[in-house]
Amino acid sequence: MSDNSLPLVISAPEPRTLDLIFTPPSLARLHAGYRIVETTDRDIAALPADVLAAARYIIGQPPISGELLDRMQSLRCVFNVETNLINNMPYETLFERGIHVVTTGAVFAEPVAELGLAMAINLARGIVDADLAFREGEELWGGDGNRTARLISGADVGIIGFGDLGKALNRLLSGFRTRTRVFDPWLPPSMLIEHGVEPASLDEVLSESDYVFVVASVTSENQGFLGADAFAKMREGAAFILLSRAGVVDFEALMDAVGTKHIIAASDVFPEEPLSLDHPVRTLPGFLRSAHRAGALDVAFKRMGDMVLEDMDLMDRGLPPLRCKRAERETVSRMRSKPVDRN
Amino acid sequence: MSDNSLPLVISAPEPRTLDLIFTPPSLARLHAGYRIVETTDRDIAALPADVLAAARYIIGQPPISGELLDRMQSLRCVFNVETNLINNMPYETLFERGIHVVTTGAVFAEPVAELGLAMAINLARGIVDADLAFREGEELWGGDGNRTARLISGADVGIIGFGDLGKALNRLLSGFRTRTRVFDPWLPPSMLIEHGVEPASLDEVLSESDYVFVVASVTSENQGFLGADAFAKMREGAAFILLSRAGVVDFEALMDAVGTKHIIAASDVFPEEPLSLDHPVRTLPGFLRSAHRAGALDVAFKRMGDMVLEDMDLMDRGLPPLRCKRAERETVSRMRSKPVDRN
Amino acid sequence: MSDNSLPLVISAPEPRTLDLIFTPPSLARLHAGYRIVETTDRDIAALPADVLAAARYIIGQPPISGELLDRMQSLRCVFNVETNLINNMPYETLFERGIHVVTTGAVFAEPVAELGLAMAINLARGIVDADLAFREGEELWGGDGNRTARLISGADVGIIGFGDLGKALNRLLSGFRTRTRVFDPWLPPSMLIEHGVEPASLDEVLSESDYVFVVASVTSENQGFLGADAFAKMREGAAFILLSRAGVVDFEALMDAVGTKHIIAASDVFPEEPLSLDHPVRTLPGFLRSAHRAGALDVAFKRMGDMVLEDMDLMDRGLPPLRCKRAERETVSRMRSKPVDRN
Amino acid sequence: MSDNSLPLVISAPEPRTLDLIFTPPSLARLHAGYRIVETTDRDIAALPADVLAAARYIIGQPPISGELLDRMQSLRCVFNVETNLINNMPYETLFERGIHVVTTGAVFAEPVAELGLAMAINLARGIVDADLAFREGEELWGGDGNRTARLISGADVGIIGFGDLGKALNRLLSGFRTRTRVFDPWLPPSMLIEHGVEPASLDEVLSESDYVFVVASVTSENQGFLGADAFAKMREGAAFILLSRAGVVDFEALMDAVGTKHIIAASDVFPEEPLSLDHPVRTLPGFLRSAHRAGALDVAFKRMGDMVLEDMDLMDRGLPPLRCKRAERETVSRMRSKPVDRN
Repeated sequence: MSDNSLPLVISAPEPRTLDLIFTPPSLARLHAGYRIVETTDRDIAALPADVLAAARYIIGQPPISGELLDRMQSLRCVFNVETNLINNMPYETLFERGIHVVTTGAVFAEPVAELGLAMAINLARGIVDADLAFREGEELWGGDGNRTARLISGADVGIIGFGDLGKALNRLLSGFRTRTRVFDPWLPPSMLIEHGVEPASLDEVLSESDYVFVVASVTSENQGFLGADAFAKMREGAAFILLSRAGVVDFEALMDAVGTKHIIAASDVFPEEPLSLDHPVRTLPGFLRSAHRAGALDVAFKRMGDMVLEDMDLMDRGLPPLRCKRAERETVSRMRSKPVDRN
Repeated sequence: MSDNSLPLVISAPEPRTLDLIFTPPSLARLHAGYRIVETTDRDIAALPADVLAAARYIIGQPPISGELLDRMQSLRCVFNVETNLINNMPYETLFERGIHVVTTGAVFAEPVAELGLAMAINLARGIVDADLAFREGEELWGGDGNRTARLISGADVGIIGFGDLGKALNRLLSGFRTRTRVFDPWLPPSMLIEHGVEPASLDEVLSESDYVFVVASVTSENQGFLGADAFAKMREGAAFILLSRAGVVDFEALMDAVGTKHIIAASDVFPEEPLSLDHPVRTLPGFLRSAHRAGALDVAFKRMGDMVLEDMDLMDRGLPPLRCKRAERETVSRMRSKPVDRN
Repeated sequence: MSDNSLPLVISAPEPRTLDLIFTPPSLARLHAGYRIVETTDRDIAALPADVLAAARYIIGQPPISGELLDRMQSLRCVFNVETNLINNMPYETLFERGIHVVTTGAVFAEPVAELGLAMAINLARGIVDADLAFREGEELWGGDGNRTARLISGADVGIIGFGDLGKALNRLLSGFRTRTRVFDPWLPPSMLIEHGVEPASLDEVLSESDYVFVVASVTSENQGFLGADAFAKMREGAAFILLSRAGVVDFEALMDAVGTKHIIAASDVFPEEPLSLDHPVRTLPGFLRSAHRAGALDVAFKRMGDMVLEDMDLMDRGLPPLRCKRAERETVSRMRSKPVDRN
Repeated sequence: MSDNSLPLVISAPEPRTLDLIFTPPSLARLHAGYRIVETTDRDIAALPADVLAAARYIIGQPPISGELLDRMQSLRCVFNVETNLINNMPYETLFERGIHVVTTGAVFAEPVAELGLAMAINLARGIVDADLAFREGEELWGGDGNRTARLISGADVGIIGFGDLGKALNRLLSGFRTRTRVFDPWLPPSMLIEHGVEPASLDEVLSESDYVFVVASVTSENQGFLGADAFAKMREGAAFILLSRAGVVDFEALMDAVGTKHIIAASDVFPEEPLSLDHPVRTLPGFLRSAHRAGALDVAFKRMGDMVLEDMDLMDRGLPPLRCKRAERETVSRMRSKPVDRN
């Protein structure tokens, strides 16, 4: 039974589902506070005029034509819970009208940062190969097994990109007393300093780090910007950990840099996903692989619903949303991360 | 050329060597500031009387009889760089005379804590098996590979033992917003609170934690104190990470608890080291193995020399040592960790 | 000599001046990178059409009519360096066109927070009256002078408002192990939790705190919202520290609550500034006074220029400003803080 | 009713009292767990032989002759709750026998550090004189009143002495992003680095700081070590905050340095206490006075009892005390702080 006096929400969260992104109590709160009209990317345009006219929020990223948007005169916010912005709605008109477009991608920052930190320590200590050797009775004991082992504590760390994920990683590193340099041309240097890291050029980050974490999104400007030249600048034996999108690196060059033992590397993302069975990275020594598993934890998805509820509550009271991340008029059309088609 | 006016140091650091525990510049400082007499555990008693009479410091843990000690009237400190105290000198007499017995084991805290944290995340995210599956083309992508994955951030963490290693682990966790309970009957509860952790009973630590880290030394009182009962109290699916000594657990019971999938576990230490080739832990699923490699990093050994130099400097000026850890009169004879015979 | 190819900036920062808000090196950078046209609130409308058409940025808060705005087709951002938003420009049109309105008020957060913390300790320890007594030979020594003295460390702290200033105050408190409750209805509770504070109702903050800091801006909704009822809810002897605007409290009621010795208080702001010479707060015991001096430090003003330069640099590159605080479409018209007419 | 099976405690805490240093519940725990024999400094030697023979702990610092000590064969620890060690017992024999001598002075660290920090901000912002001017209607508003005002945040801070008090002060400063240099010749430099401060020479601390905090105890070696030369090295306008003992400074020279406006200063301690009514420091401009009130808070005294109970519990179980601070064989006879004769 729906209560017509409640604010109306159009729900089209595919490939997510409301059950994926809301815990049962949060879903109950959503239904108690809002009139939910569930639809799909395909069917949204065919919703009744009164539904469209009343819709205050959209959960999802359905295609919206200019004409459709005209019919949604109560709209205040589009909650993109897939989290990769695609160019399927008239952003300029949305911004003119003061309709917010927000994403819930911040939920992935903590799980990805944890995996990234573990990958770094795994590379530094050879944990995977040591366990394999142990299974086979070929383990080396004590210092004999530590010929190349080293610490994160006190190391030089470089982070490329300092959005939610970079910040989460920096927070996890807070007990490690690292010297951390960050390259992020979209941020004012003084904000980096406030986070306790050093603003640096890309070259400095590459050449002065023992561990380089790549957490930058793909944009129209940085596709493949980390290539053979970049890897050549890295310290001998340094570790390269790729956590955002394969699109920012020249993957062949990365494999070469690892294959020649110049660096070691880990990645959660790959040029094609799933990856062909004969792809050489599968057996490349010095490379730690994860099949795009860094962020997709149930606990992360469930936080999306809470974020949506908190921001709806603010907007219901005439306030701007603060919990989700707003798309920016200046940059929304530059984003190039491919949306996922699975969770 | 030795300068007889310099303070005399007897060096018998086996199984360590001065080259292992001093960086070249530190070793140069040692030689510039002290007259070093190198000997062995076997030969120390045969040193010339004037050498024994002049010795201000011993680096090492050679056997010292009461009679030998009587001949060392200038002795101020024994620097145990092996770090496990054995009962081969008249501690009571040393304490009466105000001769310090100190160990340099704190150098291992940071490397062990890093490995321990990585082990915990490895268990939580299945990193090793995921990489192995990827090598074989059997990886699961995205959320499909994360059925049991979970975070350290925000988790309930238990630490058993809160010496240097427990403190180092707690520091590494500072960015993870955990609720951390600690069991350490040798520490006053208010000191735990000052470190931001909650004093707790052993039962509470076991039953209320998602991750249990064991970093307690073996003493005459706690051998095998973590047995089947202890593991049964743990949460379903919780992780047990053993970092100090195998002697504190009933290893068979630990394997059973993992074998029945009640818990998952990781260990750096084993009942026998090296371990027999057919030991069942080698292939036990849900168990991550490390061959006593957690602490034995070159960078750790090298810090020992700096600690020794700093404390010698204090004692040369009539001050007490503060950098190394002092053996305590009350507890020195309770310690039961076996010394290592290799580095 | 001006270079017509440089981006054009209209400067009308009164009551600030460029010399007040820029250090000499920053001012040199401003002049090297931009063509500066200095004008006044009165004269801006009379600027030549080509200047208006070319203006990319405005430094200041001059009155702008809709007609004037129409003539400024290159405008990207208004930098309000007075920092209190007044309703003298067509904000809705600015937002529609994607022109940012930003303020540099964050520079005051740190100086105000420091003074606020000192005020709290002053109240807790009676520092002012103790120094006066000492001057007069009437001091009480040791514990005799500490009958009502207490600590901030470990205390219950309440903060009303959690913008830049509330966050700065919370950061300064990070070494004090306080339990801190925050009331801020404009923020999602989970963001407060991420800052390590507890979201709370206004009543909880008032009734459960030993120290209550008021750092909320005046809006159309909260004028005088802290009155006799609010003070009555406070703990006996608790301290009330007012740092934002006198407009949020019923000042008479505050003086009553102090006069009856129910609470003690400090304030940097007053109902009229300057205050009449016979105002009773001047001699009220239990009240610590500061003549709106908390924020107006030269070092704070000088940071404004750096913030402006950083955000101009981002916008010059087609990116959104991040260093200054953006006015929000939803709330800009609710702000009621009176602008200052002096620095 | 006393239970003879309980461990026996001789209580002679003057000038403290058990009621001063124990909260009622802690005092109840003391009486429930121990047989308390109350005596005085004068009468302890006359206690019955069986009481002396059974005494496990002493609370207080009564005079103990070698002969008296011989009669106390169960003694494990002397809890000095006055906290300044005087030379009225045979320390060497105590140490030989493994009897601990501990002090509870750490309770003062937090209250003194808070006052010290407040003093620094008071000096930096002129809080006392501004309030006085306000009372008289002579206040200066806004920036006009801030001609010499400056921040602690981001400042260069120097700390002389890094015992409990120095560490507490450093913790309180953790939110202020200071660069902090520490001079403490009794500590190994690496321990300072672990606390996030820079080891420095006395000259560096004096000449490179905006705020110099003196928290060093008086010893036989450092009496009056901060004289005219030291103050001359300080930065023009820097602040000198004296928190430990007047004995470490040449007080006349300090007043001269303030009188000539070279520096500003605050002090909680004075050459004589109480101070003569005509002492010139009473009216010295640029000097903030506190009548030895920094530490003597009731909440601090009450923590002493809890520390005593925690350490008794450890020693009852055969463990060494860890909560109170142990006197060191090497330094006990160097301490020169005068005991207090009032609380």
